[in-house]
Amino acid sequence: MASSPPSEDAPGEQHGEDPAPAAERARNALLTIPRGIAQVEFQPNVWTGLIFLIALFVGGWQFGAFALLGVGTATATAYLLGVDRNRVSLGLEGFNGTLIGVALVLYLGTDWSTVPLVVGGAVAGSVLTAALNSVLTPYKLPTFTAPFCVVALVMAIGAPSYARVWAGHNNSAPPSATDPGTAMTWTDFWHGFFNGIGQVFFQDKWYVGLIFLIGLAVSSRLVAAAAAASSLIGLLTGWWLGAQAADLGAGLYGYNAVLTGIALTGTFVVLSPAGVAYAVVGAATAAGLTAGLTNLFNVVGGHTLTWPFVLVTWVFLAAVPIFSRIRRAA
Amino acid sequence: MASSPPSEDAPGEQHGEDPAPAAERARNALLTIPRGIAQVEFQPNVWTGLIFLIALFVGGWQFGAFALLGVGTATATAYLLGVDRNRVSLGLEGFNGTLIGVALVLYLGTDWSTVPLVVGGAVAGSVLTAALNSVLTPYKLPTFTAPFCVVALVMAIGAPSYARVWAGHNNSAPPSATDPGTAMTWTDFWHGFFNGIGQVFFQDKWYVGLIFLIGLAVSSRLVAAAAAASSLIGLLTGWWLGAQAADLGAGLYGYNAVLTGIALTGTFVVLSPAGVAYAVVGAATAAGLTAGLTNLFNVVGGHTLTWPFVLVTWVFLAAVPIFSRIRRAA
Amino acid sequence: MASSPPSEDAPGEQHGEDPAPAAERARNALLTIPRGIAQVEFQPNVWTGLIFLIALFVGGWQFGAFALLGVGTATATAYLLGVDRNRVSLGLEGFNGTLIGVALVLYLGTDWSTVPLVVGGAVAGSVLTAALNSVLTPYKLPTFTAPFCVVALVMAIGAPSYARVWAGHNNSAPPSATDPGTAMTWTDFWHGFFNGIGQVFFQDKWYVGLIFLIGLAVSSRLVAAAAAASSLIGLLTGWWLGAQAADLGAGLYGYNAVLTGIALTGTFVVLSPAGVAYAVVGAATAAGLTAGLTNLFNVVGGHTLTWPFVLVTWVFLAAVPIFSRIRRAA
Repeated sequence: MASSPPSEDAPGEQHGEDPAPAAERARNALLTIPRGIAQVEFQPNVWTGLIFLIALFVGGWQFGAFALLGVGTATATAYLLGVDRNRVSLGLEGFNGTLIGVALVLYLGTDWSTVPLVVGGAVAGSVLTAALNSVLTPYKLPTFTAPFCVVALVMAIGAPSYARVWAGHNNSAPPSATDPGTAMTWTDFWHGFFNGIGQVFFQDKWYVGLIFLIGLAVSSRLVAAAAAASSLIGLLTGWWLGAQAADLGAGLYGYNAVLTGIALTGTFVVLSPAGVAYAVVGAATAAGLTAGLTNLFNVVGGHTLTWPFVLVTWVFLAAVPIFSRIRRAA
Repeated sequence: MASSPPSEDAPGEQHGEDPAPAAERARNALLTIPRGIAQVEFQPNVWTGLIFLIALFVGGWQFGAFALLGVGTATATAYLLGVDRNRVSLGLEGFNGTLIGVALVLYLGTDWSTVPLVVGGAVAGSVLTAALNSVLTPYKLPTFTAPFCVVALVMAIGAPSYARVWAGHNNSAPPSATDPGTAMTWTDFWHGFFNGIGQVFFQDKWYVGLIFLIGLAVSSRLVAAAAAASSLIGLLTGWWLGAQAADLGAGLYGYNAVLTGIALTGTFVVLSPAGVAYAVVGAATAAGLTAGLTNLFNVVGGHTLTWPFVLVTWVFLAAVPIFSRIRRAA
Repeated sequence: MASSPPSEDAPGEQHGEDPAPAAERARNALLTIPRGIAQVEFQPNVWTGLIFLIALFVGGWQFGAFALLGVGTATATAYLLGVDRNRVSLGLEGFNGTLIGVALVLYLGTDWSTVPLVVGGAVAGSVLTAALNSVLTPYKLPTFTAPFCVVALVMAIGAPSYARVWAGHNNSAPPSATDPGTAMTWTDFWHGFFNGIGQVFFQDKWYVGLIFLIGLAVSSRLVAAAAAASSLIGLLTGWWLGAQAADLGAGLYGYNAVLTGIALTGTFVVLSPAGVAYAVVGAATAAGLTAGLTNLFNVVGGHTLTWPFVLVTWVFLAAVPIFSRIRRAA
């Protein structure tokens, strides 16, 4: 999602001219896949993407496999429709497809019938990415994971109407449904810290969250520090407000804070004392907003996804030009 | 809705100068009525509008009568508020009023108390059309039937709070509520094909759908072919996903595909192989989205209207500038 | 909210230069507080703000105290983040905070735990005000009370998930829940007239509404007349449609009409016969929309807030450039 110029391992090729030999082009095409996975957290880094992919396979083979299906379909769709090559190379056309794959296999079950739905969802996500870019570019806002949120939400809401789709669906009740109570244990706390990072990809095992954190650190120490601090801010915000301990332990109050914190700390906002304070308020707002949106979406089956991150970060970035103390990163 | 230049039978008069004799002005004013009905499906054609009106009266006298009330009120409001004459002449200010009239008489009953509600709704629809045009013009997007969708949805949601309004309301449960099951019969199939065209105007008799198809063919063979193909795509998409057979037979998965297919085949997108593939994906997406939006709106009484068409077509048109393979029609 | 130039008692100071002595600067800073309260109804008038504050304290000490907390926090946040000084001085950064304070103490109870929520809500409201201004300025639309509506709605929806927040919450069922029926008495009528004005600030005692009306008259006779006429229009619209008498008597169909009527009568639309007709239609539309939005929000606990006013007035102002008979005020 970062708009940084293509680095060494990203092809700088232009539309219309394509002098690179076939082997290099194939290599570059292949590298857009891990970059597409890493761009879920704004990193155009191949190694980060590969570590994220390992984390997904550790979480369950189906998460890794459907993530690959999603990122591949979305990237190929964008390529075929003629999206700017640089965007495709940087992985900016793949990250929504990655999340669509992981979310649909989680909600609808590990089943062959989920395959065409992920393909269709990833195609729709690519068209929606292009449409949102048309609308948001005048405001200098990226799409973030909004295309994924829209596609996954609509498919999750519509799924019960379709016999073929709904056959293998999973229960999506939060952990607190079977384990209510607001008293947070030490286990809830440290699991919640790592799960806050893993839940960006819907993973709820602490060691999977740890692998994601390592993947971020490979790309940037600052980003990993921002992710860890934001997970803690989300956890503490939820705890102070009196959220359910089991949900805190599963990282449900952390992952939106993590994405918001990374986005507002150096990525899209210039790093400064005022900027960091702004990011802290943003991360806490995203965590607080989580319950509101969860209750709202519960009406239709409950899928909060990364909506709190998307909405809070759009608002915080759109506000920057009005605030003389905060500046957008180039 | 088409932005084509005024044809022969549309007055080319400018603001401020009005040299046409009174008889011709009256004739032109009268012709805006059938054009307003035909513009529901993007055709500024008087004969198409008259055939559509016949179809509505065949469906039930109240549909024809309230469509006339709606299109007349909306057109008169736009004229009185000073909307550009060309838009008014082409029927672009009438089609949302047409649908408001048909929808409200269907939901709230054939009753004198529905008359002022249609008038009020059509006035609100005209103001909303102007507001949306202000907002959407920078993105080169038409309003489509969004003003109708907003007005009819809000009135349908609010109606139960108003004793006078709610007195004569009709049951709006889908056919599958009394006839569940996913096994589609041959009758479901061919009824569904024609009803998919008739449901654009809320009509659920196959021969009414056939009259609408004839009306489209009078304006353009291509448009009629696109409508027929799209109704089939919608039907097959819903069937493949496992939708309720009675709803498929009533055309509930077809009408949004029909409108989307017409809009993306030559009307707003240049006709080309890639453009037709784009239209097919769009029509299937609109059909798939139907269940999602129906479940969402069921929470407040269930009125899907033409929201799937409006949202999908906005997204597919807004995305065009990003895709080098697809081009907007002039 | 009015964009009139700073009057005598508003400091005309520019960024970077600050020649006024400390005493005057303190006095100016202090006067932004009552102006922030008065701006809820578009008046940058200190006396109006003080009378509104008295009305709130007459309604209940907690409404006055939390309004002060909200307006102070919002204004200080805007100042610290570097919002344009003129906007801050005119009270344009305070009015959403005012309403956030009043709404949260009403919904969540008079409790110490409500204090940090009002502070957090007012900070979020200030950021959202800046973001909406970035987005709406190209369309020449003000934010109105949208930031308050979003923050209060999200907090009200999320509150039940948070044990600490939900502990002291109040019942928010409408009066008709315990007193159903559509037969309006004379008491319902004249109470409804004054309460329609008081409900802008969530007050449901007729004499509090009267004090607010006096506050408006101090700023402008025209504005007070528009408010009174609009309250009547809202009441009659609800009554004619057959709304519950107890809700009409509590002013629930009046307050959105009042705000819409003031906004469209001379404030943002040039005063003219067509303009007044436009304002009457707008006020009636806002009242009619109230039931629709109330039923929509009932799904998540029911908080209509000033959404009908915000949406209707945005639509009616965005439509103005299309209508040659209506003109925007400078």
